[in-house]
Amino acid sequence: MDKGQRLTVIDPEGMQVADLLAFKRADIGEVISAGRTFDYAETIYLTTGHQLFSNRSNPLLEIVEDMVGRHDFLLTPCSKDTFRICYDDHDPHRGCFGNLAEALAPFGVNEDMIPSAFNCFMNVPVDGETGRFKVLPPISKAGDRIVFEAKEDVVIGLTACSARDSNGGSFKPIHWTVD
Amino acid sequence: MDKGQRLTVIDPEGMQVADLLAFKRADIGEVISAGRTFDYAETIYLTTGHQLFSNRSNPLLEIVEDMVGRHDFLLTPCSKDTFRICYDDHDPHRGCFGNLAEALAPFGVNEDMIPSAFNCFMNVPVDGETGRFKVLPPISKAGDRIVFEAKEDVVIGLTACSARDSNGGSFKPIHWTVD
Repeated sequence: MDKGQRLTVIDPEGMQVADLLAFKRADIGEVISAGRTFDYAETIYLTTGHQLFSNRSNPLLEIVEDMVGRHDFLLTPCSKDTFRICYDDHDPHRGCFGNLAEALAPFGVNEDMIPSAFNCFMNVPVDGETGRFKVLPPISKAGDRIVFEAKEDVVIGLTACSARDSNGGSFKPIHWTVD
Repeated sequence: MDKGQRLTVIDPEGMQVADLLAFKRADIGEVISAGRTFDYAETIYLTTGHQLFSNRSNPLLEIVEDMVGRHDFLLTPCSKDTFRICYDDHDPHRGCFGNLAEALAPFGVNEDMIPSAFNCFMNVPVDGETGRFKVLPPISKAGDRIVFEAKEDVVIGLTACSARDSNGGSFKPIHWTVD
């Protein structure tokens, strides 16, 4: 995406998560950072008006429209290890992490450069007293969307999520447009 | 530190934060990951018995003793950008990020390889309803400590924190021992 373009991520059937990453196109070592974004937003729940900051403290994306208002930036893209450790799967699939790694490799992104993703529509309520959280089904309804404006020229990684708990037990498509 | 050794981080005067990083010594691209650790612990507040997992889903450290019970793993090491953006400082100092970057450079760690740190004694209560958090003074008292056991041979980065809000407005030493 070029600076100023808008990415619309759409949940066409409802209750489906999409993991999103953004790297600075001119210097692929710069990538969105949950920690820096939390630092500057002073909240862990991000919505319209919030910027996603990079590891170098520059905004790469800004949320300019949000029909859902509940997304996650705490947790990592699901991976073989996620399914092995959290789901006890004996033949775990590659999940979002594997999808993102394959899609981003041609742009010079290796696996260790993949941080926590911005998880569109992922519903992770945190108990403020204990710190414990749950991964609940998204509250997104069919056709809901979130729109990001690029603040720099960026490379985007986006994948529909294949973790059962994140998606209410079924796996559905994610649509997107750029304009 | 060698696998099996224990790192004790001590707050000698009380109310002082220390930012901690751990990298796998044999492959410096492997580093503690807040996201992976949250994924497997199912809580954002970590204490005795919790392991700090790496970006490759291996435990690098385990908390084996904790006299305080309140630490932070959400936020990034304070940096020139932190002081510029959050504190409006006109001549910002390098903070924890600069300290860690200088100390870790001889081990092959560059700035982009520094993730969110485990912030010993940092007190960041989160409002579970709104997601908003506050950075409050630590609840640690003089002499309180937290002890980590190395699960692999690791390189540790550790620095007393120089962000005012994190430390109750004054900057105090941090002590440590390894045995």
